[in-house]
Amino acid sequence: MFMEKYSFEFEMKVRDYECDIQGVVNNANYQHYMEHARHEFLESLGVSFSELHSRGIDFMVSKITIEYKRPLHGSDRFVVRINMVRRGAKLVIMQDIYNLADERLSTKGEVDIICLKDGRLTRGEIFDEMFNDYFQTEE
Amino acid sequence: MFMEKYSFEFEMKVRDYECDIQGVVNNANYQHYMEHARHEFLESLGVSFSELHSRGIDFMVSKITIEYKRPLHGSDRFVVRINMVRRGAKLVIMQDIYNLADERLSTKGEVDIICLKDGRLTRGEIFDEMFNDYFQTEE
Amino acid sequence: MFMEKYSFEFEMKVRDYECDIQGVVNNANYQHYMEHARHEFLESLGVSFSELHSRGIDFMVSKITIEYKRPLHGSDRFVVRINMVRRGAKLVIMQDIYNLADERLSTKGEVDIICLKDGRLTRGEIFDEMFNDYFQTEE
Amino acid sequence: MFMEKYSFEFEMKVRDYECDIQGVVNNANYQHYMEHARHEFLESLGVSFSELHSRGIDFMVSKITIEYKRPLHGSDRFVVRINMVRRGAKLVIMQDIYNLADERLSTKGEVDIICLKDGRLTRGEIFDEMFNDYFQTEE
Repeated sequence: MFMEKYSFEFEMKVRDYECDIQGVVNNANYQHYMEHARHEFLESLGVSFSELHSRGIDFMVSKITIEYKRPLHGSDRFVVRINMVRRGAKLVIMQDIYNLADERLSTKGEVDIICLKDGRLTRGEIFDEMFNDYFQTEE
Repeated sequence: MFMEKYSFEFEMKVRDYECDIQGVVNNANYQHYMEHARHEFLESLGVSFSELHSRGIDFMVSKITIEYKRPLHGSDRFVVRINMVRRGAKLVIMQDIYNLADERLSTKGEVDIICLKDGRLTRGEIFDEMFNDYFQTEE
Repeated sequence: MFMEKYSFEFEMKVRDYECDIQGVVNNANYQHYMEHARHEFLESLGVSFSELHSRGIDFMVSKITIEYKRPLHGSDRFVVRINMVRRGAKLVIMQDIYNLADERLSTKGEVDIICLKDGRLTRGEIFDEMFNDYFQTEE
Repeated sequence: MFMEKYSFEFEMKVRDYECDIQGVVNNANYQHYMEHARHEFLESLGVSFSELHSRGIDFMVSKITIEYKRPLHGSDRFVVRINMVRRGAKLVIMQDIYNLADERLSTKGEVDIICLKDGRLTRGEIFDEMFNDYFQTEE
């Protein structure tokens, strides 16, 4: 049950302009939240995209899956909790968003990241170097 | 090969503010494009969300999967092509984005829609009524 | 020199998706920051838009002016500082954004708010009731 | 009455995700519309930002003023109409948004653009070269 412990979490609050006519966060904005939480995670590890890029290394999202469970509303506080595994050449980041008012799951994301070196797909060796301490074992 | 014919398509053009530091469309914006194309499709059928809502009927996205193949850049013209099937209680909308410069696939989306009646999950009967002419047979 | 003391401030951090091709925050996003800071200010006063709305009272932005001095970049920490005066029927909110790295002014906003009661423009009496403690004297 | 004839216009349609809880276009999105219309105008003239940039020339927004008259709603068709004058070192672009349903003014924008050459403010000579045919006389 690797989803029960998380490697990193980042707290945020819904801004009203992120909500749509239904008064809930627009679906695409959860993807923004997840992206920002990933960047905060990398920043916490001291990873610099620009430094990587200058060495010819680029991370790219190749696929994202988001399950929408319970919508967030204006001013809701929430937390994005992050976990990760390695699958083939990919780094797979699980990102679950919980509403802090009741600790219930709002949104469940899974993001596949690939690594390019000089524009060519790598086997993801750099993921092992960078994130080895954070990997969960898939059961 | 149901993905080769589409029921609906909607053309758009990348706006510069939709691009991020890498000069390509930010990942979350493809979800915006897909949402807008779905709404244009419904509008073309004369479906009114507010009229449905007043009868207690609400469509909701329960899951979305997006595969990123080739990024779009500022000012690129593209088309969102739409197809759909029924699976259990769900309406599954396939939404493929093609760059019009070369007709190559940019992004591949699959969106699960559920239907609530008075706040309770339905078996999706209304999807059959509304979209029957548009369903593809899954092989 | 009323701009030198502020009634309220709210700290934020640039998210990468808010930046555009030039690597700086897209101009429209400063308006989002200002809107969010205003809502945080109102929330800190216990003002509820929905409660006001249920009494027939609506606040609306009638005009906004933004001067762009120094752009914010990805991951920059900044603070939105707020001040306000009354002018005729309007509440005028000054919102200055400072980069926290060097305390230099990034963006200077001035937002005119009008108050409608049952859809008709009021003289802004409610602004006096709600924000009297916060007004600066214009010199 | 220079505002009565316009040099350029660009038609768009409100996308539902651009609307907020009130069911109207969020204030910051009008700024996005205006930015996109300016870029379409420049594109229509064959102006390339990247080509300019490679010659050390950069256009920047130094100030924007927007008056909000009548909100746009989901699916509204509208047009951004553009005019421009020279004031000192600045190019001032007037951008008025009209709802196409009734041709009434929705939003009135005025955008000050400055021109940098190798990072230093110019007197705006390049504006005269590029846009001379489009200037209105201020009365």
